[in-house]
Amino acid sequence: MAELEWLDGGITAVPGILASGVAAGIKPSGKKDLALVYSSAPARAAAVFTSNQVKGAPVIVSMEHARGGVAQAIVASSGCANVCTGEQGVRDAREMTRLVGELLRISPQHVLIAATGVIGVPLPMEKIRAALPKLVKALSPQGGRSANESILTTDTRTKEAAARVDVNGRSVTIGGMAKGVGMIEPHLATMLCFIATDAVVSREALNTVTRRAVDRSFNRATVDGDQSTSDTVAVLANGLAENTALTEAGRGLRQFARGLEAVMGRLARMLVQDGEGATKLVTITVCGAATRKDALAAARSIANSSLVKTAINGQDPNWGRLMMALGKSSARVDASRVSISFEEERLVEGGVMRPGVRIERLREIMGRNEYTITVDLGLGRGEETVWTCDLSEEYVRINAKYTT
Amino acid sequence: MAELEWLDGGITAVPGILASGVAAGIKPSGKKDLALVYSSAPARAAAVFTSNQVKGAPVIVSMEHARGGVAQAIVASSGCANVCTGEQGVRDAREMTRLVGELLRISPQHVLIAATGVIGVPLPMEKIRAALPKLVKALSPQGGRSANESILTTDTRTKEAAARVDVNGRSVTIGGMAKGVGMIEPHLATMLCFIATDAVVSREALNTVTRRAVDRSFNRATVDGDQSTSDTVAVLANGLAENTALTEAGRGLRQFARGLEAVMGRLARMLVQDGEGATKLVTITVCGAATRKDALAAARSIANSSLVKTAINGQDPNWGRLMMALGKSSARVDASRVSISFEEERLVEGGVMRPGVRIERLREIMGRNEYTITVDLGLGRGEETVWTCDLSEEYVRINAKYTT
Repeated sequence: MAELEWLDGGITAVPGILASGVAAGIKPSGKKDLALVYSSAPARAAAVFTSNQVKGAPVIVSMEHARGGVAQAIVASSGCANVCTGEQGVRDAREMTRLVGELLRISPQHVLIAATGVIGVPLPMEKIRAALPKLVKALSPQGGRSANESILTTDTRTKEAAARVDVNGRSVTIGGMAKGVGMIEPHLATMLCFIATDAVVSREALNTVTRRAVDRSFNRATVDGDQSTSDTVAVLANGLAENTALTEAGRGLRQFARGLEAVMGRLARMLVQDGEGATKLVTITVCGAATRKDALAAARSIANSSLVKTAINGQDPNWGRLMMALGKSSARVDASRVSISFEEERLVEGGVMRPGVRIERLREIMGRNEYTITVDLGLGRGEETVWTCDLSEEYVRINAKYTT
Repeated sequence: MAELEWLDGGITAVPGILASGVAAGIKPSGKKDLALVYSSAPARAAAVFTSNQVKGAPVIVSMEHARGGVAQAIVASSGCANVCTGEQGVRDAREMTRLVGELLRISPQHVLIAATGVIGVPLPMEKIRAALPKLVKALSPQGGRSANESILTTDTRTKEAAARVDVNGRSVTIGGMAKGVGMIEPHLATMLCFIATDAVVSREALNTVTRRAVDRSFNRATVDGDQSTSDTVAVLANGLAENTALTEAGRGLRQFARGLEAVMGRLARMLVQDGEGATKLVTITVCGAATRKDALAAARSIANSSLVKTAINGQDPNWGRLMMALGKSSARVDASRVSISFEEERLVEGGVMRPGVRIERLREIMGRNEYTITVDLGLGRGEETVWTCDLSEEYVRINAKYTT
């Protein structure tokens, strides 16, 4: 059996997982805006939330509930983020988890909640109260796509991924859905990611591998350097695969962790690809750094530079901007040792343009929808990769014209 | 006599300062691209350079020359930054200071050099060698504007300021020119600022007040969060005012420092106003912070957020984005204590929208070319101000379409 096999479908590809999505009327457009994910068996839960000091009410409530380490449902809304809504916002979020709990006959403490949309506006609770019974009724083992549609805002498409991985010789499934455009992203495009798996994993092990997978996937993705007040990644492990519990460092947990990272990495790249106004997904790999931390700092500085991102948009091999971004980063940089390649075409050597570089070849590479820029700092063995997109006029249009 | 009186003209408003600008043929457009500032008397010199680890050859040479603390001329070119040009670039920069020194009969060590433009391309030295005698011949006490024109790149207009200040009862003049769009800015819009004064100032005092004035002016301006490899601020003090030397902390030095800060502040705001694609100059003041450092971090986080800057562009009072930017900053923030005003109109109180806020009034304020956003964190007495501009589709057009 292959170590990892991609499956069709998203979160409902996982045994025991049902999902649904309905239009509650939160979005003025009338599109779907309320989603539910439900595990037929109580699940171990691990969650990671925004580090922004201004946290949405759903984040505050989910942080409390996640502390218990068990969850059976996730309810999520789009169109209204329920952030900066004071005490009322927290009461509303609690009421939603209570109503979902009653309808599903589970403890409200086992319901996680998330939201994305406008900041500073209270949730239209009457509409939500009316829609929740319909949402629960619509739960289905084919409902992943519908739930995913219900959490989109400026996203242009759904983002689902599922894989089967071999864990100590036993097959487990990991499936998930996401929305938004990066860990670091706009308020209307809050990053939400819900993952389910049928693996049996101990609480501590699930926490550890979730944090690491988030760090290596969503934390490596950037669209515009801003950070939402609502970012949430939640992982439910319902244990239906009945594998020997993954409890500590060992081959099985490593296999599971690799699968989780693969699914989250795929979702993270989908977010960047669908970044607001984005037309390109560019992988930035920095190697030869003095340390791994330096490699990450250098890669992030490139990935977040407005000038690099506009050059990517304009398909312009403006390598001076890459040198600028390296030099302003906290990584140790010696200009005279830097090499830069676009795919296999070496552009810069020893900090200056390589004689005989094929500019037309570079333009052809930059015309693609996806390519890799590799920077070798020539100082050590540190290596890291991040994913970024271009900064387009469309990005400005979307964000200037969007009305509060 | 008023403490500070604004004068017409820029750097050549200062006694003993001559300047000139010519078209050497560095810019393909045929526009002026070579500038010279000359002080008839040797001057104390203080200079501040980019902190980017990748430094242009002119920065490397000027750092050496500035170490002596005396200068009599500044030669600057636009169209080619002479950055990432290896050893040849440094040799070219040295040759330019040598040629200017010979033509002016001064030591090459007393010539500072700066450049702005494309990175990674060597200077067209033959054209420059041919143009330098013409540049020296064109020196004139009315040449400030022409010199300023010669250092522009994507700038749409010249930036000059001059003021007369009272220093211990004696009148001294401070005049300067600048180009670019912020301390933190694009590579083709490197920030250059040359200031002259006839004040007699000791070397140490000039260094101190120059660093502080740069910190309170250009370091408070932001366009796009990128940092050039060529940024240079140079101050020449030729002593022709024959005031008692300003040597140490005292009333006279404070008066001079205030004048220097006023001139640099005015130039810094001009840079932001002319930022690439900018249509608005917005002053961000954060008060009530736990510390001054927190106030600056919070103000910078707002001023550099792509989402805040697109909202300013769209004239949209999207205060959720301000909350997001506050929350992601390193400043201590308690959402429930935050107040936000646009000019005198209070929009947010206690972290939520103030009932009765006049949205139409906010839109009117945001329709202006210049306005102030004041954020009170409600935690202490720290206060800081930064200047920013909007992020427009035009910014993307300029930087995507610009071809290396």
